[in-house]
Amino acid sequence: MTTSREIHLAARPRGAPQPSDFSLVEVDVPDPADGEVLIRNAFMSVDPYMRGRMNDAKSYVPPFQVGEALTGGAVGQVVASHNDRFAEGSWVVHSLGWRELALSDGKGLMAFDPSLAPLSTSLGVLGMPGLTAYVGLLDVGRPAEGETVFVSGAAGAVGSAVGQIARLKGCRTIGSAGSPEKVAWLRELGFDEAFDYHEVSPRDALHDGIDVYFDNVGGPTLEAAISALRVRGRVVACGAISIYNATEPPPGPRNLAMVFTKRLRYEGFIVSDHYDRLPDFLAEVGPWVRDGRVQYRETVVEGIENAPVALIGLLAGENIGKMLVQVGPDA
Amino acid sequence: MTTSREIHLAARPRGAPQPSDFSLVEVDVPDPADGEVLIRNAFMSVDPYMRGRMNDAKSYVPPFQVGEALTGGAVGQVVASHNDRFAEGSWVVHSLGWRELALSDGKGLMAFDPSLAPLSTSLGVLGMPGLTAYVGLLDVGRPAEGETVFVSGAAGAVGSAVGQIARLKGCRTIGSAGSPEKVAWLRELGFDEAFDYHEVSPRDALHDGIDVYFDNVGGPTLEAAISALRVRGRVVACGAISIYNATEPPPGPRNLAMVFTKRLRYEGFIVSDHYDRLPDFLAEVGPWVRDGRVQYRETVVEGIENAPVALIGLLAGENIGKMLVQVGPDA
Repeated sequence: MTTSREIHLAARPRGAPQPSDFSLVEVDVPDPADGEVLIRNAFMSVDPYMRGRMNDAKSYVPPFQVGEALTGGAVGQVVASHNDRFAEGSWVVHSLGWRELALSDGKGLMAFDPSLAPLSTSLGVLGMPGLTAYVGLLDVGRPAEGETVFVSGAAGAVGSAVGQIARLKGCRTIGSAGSPEKVAWLRELGFDEAFDYHEVSPRDALHDGIDVYFDNVGGPTLEAAISALRVRGRVVACGAISIYNATEPPPGPRNLAMVFTKRLRYEGFIVSDHYDRLPDFLAEVGPWVRDGRVQYRETVVEGIENAPVALIGLLAGENIGKMLVQVGPDA
Repeated sequence: MTTSREIHLAARPRGAPQPSDFSLVEVDVPDPADGEVLIRNAFMSVDPYMRGRMNDAKSYVPPFQVGEALTGGAVGQVVASHNDRFAEGSWVVHSLGWRELALSDGKGLMAFDPSLAPLSTSLGVLGMPGLTAYVGLLDVGRPAEGETVFVSGAAGAVGSAVGQIARLKGCRTIGSAGSPEKVAWLRELGFDEAFDYHEVSPRDALHDGIDVYFDNVGGPTLEAAISALRVRGRVVACGAISIYNATEPPPGPRNLAMVFTKRLRYEGFIVSDHYDRLPDFLAEVGPWVRDGRVQYRETVVEGIENAPVALIGLLAGENIGKMLVQVGPDA
């Protein structure tokens, strides 16, 4: 028996979440039973989709329950094991969420070898966000060499991977983000064009036309991208962070008739449907990360007590690259 | 040399077209030169997409020009021929538009044999609208047997074909239309459910869920259909007649985030990209029309001078089935 701290949903937010919507709770954790392992988390993943789970709404994942711990991605070390598949000292990625210690029967755990890449990449460029970028771009967007790919939220964990993978596949790339610092990073990453949507309207920035739009934000950027898409263009519907905090969903774009006049394909996907592509993704993108052709950044918040602030900040665009909370030793 | 009458665009409408936006003009038609044929039109096609061409807006077809004849589908008889491919007396479908007599160099003419089906079907159930239904449903929507297909504008030329083809492919079918008479016809056609959207909200009518939505109308029906779509559902974006007369395009649906939460595919198409499917369409749907498994209705307005009123009426939903203008003998 030991104790752990975890973050519970205290109340369902209306609009932007407030710190009071979360609570830090100390709990007893029993010793692992037969077949179980005890994991001491190093990093917890902070992801935009978590905002949707705070609402009491049916979606592709069940909502968080008030009074219970938020679940989500994390990576940690097995500190006690009664499961032959996971040795003590090994590192595992899991979705047991926002707690310092997690008990698991082994289901859904994925081993991660930190000698191949830094531990934190298991939640970012080589984890769920990287796979999201890979399957969304290649399997849904299907850009041809020489086509122009526009990605919004381009300085985020998903967006930065989308732009770099698109460039490596021979596409022209345009990225939008919400600060000069982010835009400067996009230029470093090799985006052909990068703009701050506070300074330049997406409509102006996209006036030369695009073939694929990888949508992380929704809202006016989506409308501008639909106008900019060429005939047979594609919208990869990945997320809509600009409206996640809205109390009433805002109206959609006024130019949806372009879907038929330009024969567009506007298609959504959920990364969890595509884990069969994980081996391809790791085989192709893993070497690019190791040799620096795909770069990444992380915004790391220290301490589980600061996880709510990290999520609130993510939704306000305060992160560059992957947003993480470090809750324990990573080596 | 002979004379013909044609309908010109007199002014670009704002909102719903008015009779004063059109003019009836008498013109001289020269005798056909070498390689040319002279066609005496029997029927002119009245189609929703023509409203878009009245605006000065870039789209998949160039806009009509003020002071020039409206172009569009028609079928007529070759009354003089200096082209070996088209004998005098034969019948041809063409897109030379809203005129009694048309001169053609033979390009884009398609022969039609009126011994196989009534001449008017060449513009309707066995013509462009039928092919639109066929490729939109089967190639874009791709319903599986047992899935539920919802089509709006279901009593129109395209919608009535969509529902009947879907039923023959083993789908459950739901149709919406704008009058009790139309709904009664949908029931005759074998739609599993049919509703008048003035009487029943699409949201209520679709509460059991759908797999494919064939969208002819846009607007609130589109929003309701997106909410009703099941995971991996598809929207076939064919048209948006509910907004064609809008002076400002209205906002889109508020629930577009469902495109990613439900992994929807929302895809547009233009029938003119799919004429390679015409032989398949005629081979499959032709026999169904001849043996009555696919039925059709037509609303025929007499006289070229009434063509503007026919288009105005189409946009107001006054037709059942295919809207046609008869401008000459059809035998």
